[in-house]
Amino acid sequence: MKPSIPKGTRDFSPLETSRREYIFETIRSVYKLYGYMPIETPAMEQLSTLTGKYGEEGDQLIFKILNSGDYWSKVNAESKENPESKSLTFQISEKALRYDLTVPFARYVVMHQHELTFPFKRYQIQPVWRADRPQKGRYREFFQCDADVIGSDSLLNELELIMIINEVFKRLKFDVVIKINHRSILSGIAEVTGESDKLIAMVTALDKLDKIGAEKVKEEMLEKNISQAAIDKIAPLFDMKGDAATQLSTLKSFLGESESGKKGLQEAEELLQMLSASKLNNATVEFDVTLARGLNYYTGCIIEVKAKDVAMGSICGGGRYDDLTGIFGLKGMSGVGISFGADRIYDVMEEKKLFQSSSSTSTQVLIVNFGKAEFNYALEVAITLREAGISCELYPDEAKFKKQLGYADSLKIPFVIMAGSEEVKNRKVTLKNMNSGDQQTVDLSELISILKD
Amino acid sequence: MKPSIPKGTRDFSPLETSRREYIFETIRSVYKLYGYMPIETPAMEQLSTLTGKYGEEGDQLIFKILNSGDYWSKVNAESKENPESKSLTFQISEKALRYDLTVPFARYVVMHQHELTFPFKRYQIQPVWRADRPQKGRYREFFQCDADVIGSDSLLNELELIMIINEVFKRLKFDVVIKINHRSILSGIAEVTGESDKLIAMVTALDKLDKIGAEKVKEEMLEKNISQAAIDKIAPLFDMKGDAATQLSTLKSFLGESESGKKGLQEAEELLQMLSASKLNNATVEFDVTLARGLNYYTGCIIEVKAKDVAMGSICGGGRYDDLTGIFGLKGMSGVGISFGADRIYDVMEEKKLFQSSSSTSTQVLIVNFGKAEFNYALEVAITLREAGISCELYPDEAKFKKQLGYADSLKIPFVIMAGSEEVKNRKVTLKNMNSGDQQTVDLSELISILKD
Repeated sequence: MKPSIPKGTRDFSPLETSRREYIFETIRSVYKLYGYMPIETPAMEQLSTLTGKYGEEGDQLIFKILNSGDYWSKVNAESKENPESKSLTFQISEKALRYDLTVPFARYVVMHQHELTFPFKRYQIQPVWRADRPQKGRYREFFQCDADVIGSDSLLNELELIMIINEVFKRLKFDVVIKINHRSILSGIAEVTGESDKLIAMVTALDKLDKIGAEKVKEEMLEKNISQAAIDKIAPLFDMKGDAATQLSTLKSFLGESESGKKGLQEAEELLQMLSASKLNNATVEFDVTLARGLNYYTGCIIEVKAKDVAMGSICGGGRYDDLTGIFGLKGMSGVGISFGADRIYDVMEEKKLFQSSSSTSTQVLIVNFGKAEFNYALEVAITLREAGISCELYPDEAKFKKQLGYADSLKIPFVIMAGSEEVKNRKVTLKNMNSGDQQTVDLSELISILKD
Repeated sequence: MKPSIPKGTRDFSPLETSRREYIFETIRSVYKLYGYMPIETPAMEQLSTLTGKYGEEGDQLIFKILNSGDYWSKVNAESKENPESKSLTFQISEKALRYDLTVPFARYVVMHQHELTFPFKRYQIQPVWRADRPQKGRYREFFQCDADVIGSDSLLNELELIMIINEVFKRLKFDVVIKINHRSILSGIAEVTGESDKLIAMVTALDKLDKIGAEKVKEEMLEKNISQAAIDKIAPLFDMKGDAATQLSTLKSFLGESESGKKGLQEAEELLQMLSASKLNNATVEFDVTLARGLNYYTGCIIEVKAKDVAMGSICGGGRYDDLTGIFGLKGMSGVGISFGADRIYDVMEEKKLFQSSSSTSTQVLIVNFGKAEFNYALEVAITLREAGISCELYPDEAKFKKQLGYADSLKIPFVIMAGSEEVKNRKVTLKNMNSGDQQTVDLSELISILKD
């Protein structure tokens, strides 16, 4: 019996776990710096909380949990007569694994609304599960690192979220481009081209410009019954040139008197002005009228982040959604948030060799086990080092010296301590630097000061 | 539609999440100090990996995940003809949520054996799920914080795990009693009373001595067909008095020539000797012959930890199991480990008021939003503070002063900054201490040094 794990899931080795923890901790510390507070929600939600929130395709991708006990006895007569997966599912499953962190957050806010102070700024770093077809960079279990503000319409929230993105990638030491757009600009474009009712089709096609090019985008629009006249009118937007201010001015004449368009332009302009006052010191911010991600969802600003010089999809994204908690009965609460994709960030950092340490362990010193006679002294050395905050290990078995050294070598432990009968007698240790091979015999206080360096 | 969460699961508020993170981080940092390395495994395991590992009752408590897609079409003809929960389960579910961290660890070691250096010391802090009946202190989703060593028979591992327990509770600032026993001593007792074949029944009863008292234990033994003669012989062990050395000496005469008994006694003695050399500075270690927890599992030392002065079950436990990975085909690998119960530790700390902070947020300062004219200066102050590592928030909306102050008050933010037109002109801020009510007007460098204190 050869054990395996479900496809699309992963084990993380010590090295991978430490590196992932470094990414999470970086994101967490920046979220805290901006006053976001942590919450955690259960892995399992009521199935009814999740269904209908991610579209029909999304519903298929939710992992459902089989009811415990004799679930079949509770299936209704009709389904027992004529069983069929679709109608059975809701009778034999009441719970499901969360699909993202946004719906659980909305559910949390509604359930706990009377305990919360608004605007409520929360972050949440937890895994989510999707029964998607696994492929490179797409997993069935992966972490999301979300921050959202609920209960404030102010654009300052968008500004601070972009500042957070800038700071996180500054700390992780890589360059990113932050693209922004506004849903109302997109609505305005559909409006002035006379295709308001085909907004989603139009923008879904526009969103692919990057990947498939202008000709294919036009083809897709035609297929979706967008008129040739509208396409001709939009086409110049495909290759708008210049900085954000220039592009916004082009759009201003394009959008004319569209109310929606004007609102979008005004907010985008205001945000860009504030961004320029905040002097971001790492990320480049660009305006991108083709950016649409999750259009059904966002109602205001849309944000997407890509790594410079690395071919990788979006590594962070977000935006504003005017009615986050309406689905659970709490109306009029506007939310805005971002989500870092830790798995893709990991891949970029690995490709760019940005992880500092290649060691799986935090152990600084291995103390060689020479046997019973030296044991109490070795234990004393270990206790002394740990009291000084130095991670160390005492090799548990009285194995051959070569084997013990091999252990240190294979885990890349930087120092080894040998304390044989001579050292025990003089209350010293011999310290070997595993990189240089140098050895020196020192007393315990010298030992600590060397290792603390 | 009123949202809810599945019974036995919990949402964690910002305050609870921070406090839980403090417990996890304490445990994590001590594990690292002793050279344990982190791994993570998927929430979902193959159902076949988990079934049969926790007894028949345990199998019932595993949360199974419904297969995606048209699962009913793959049910075999026999079950379609005559559907019944038990036989259906394995046809419509291939995956399950992990039930503990030990079986996934064993599976991990077997799958990755060629990448690992042995002895392999790993820690793992992740949630587990059990379809248990929820009750006070028992949840369907809860975290385990495990450390195990695999591939070393040395008692030094047991010693270090006990030192870890001592250090964790020292850092969490509460007193614990660590009880130890040895499976071979229990086998020896069954042997010398002529009841080797009833070992499990005998020890299961003995394990309840604490809770139900001597008379009830004897009754249970009789019910389980343990002879009156054997019970009479064991009875004196129920109230063994004195320190560990005295008790072990009583047991030595009791166990006589039992090989198993002698082995257990020798290991227990050796461990207690090493513990006395290691001078634990927080926990009290006691020998307890009635300790049995999970007897089917452990084969060597058994460890259990309880808080002093608080009525709460075990808050940490562990022991040695000689053949951890045998179930997955890798023989002869002895393991020893411990697991901290973070939820119970949380409850004890709350009861003993050991959490230092009662604030949900890490925000040190709220900067009042006075509106557009003062905005750029307020933003500059925020940027300056964050660059100095001080968590701060700029209130996002131009709300009434009283409302903004109320926000700081309700989140227990210790300082508020006011920068109106006068302050902007002089490049100063007025800083209000929310506890004392004191106010002072200072420049930005003074501000930082006050807040850094």
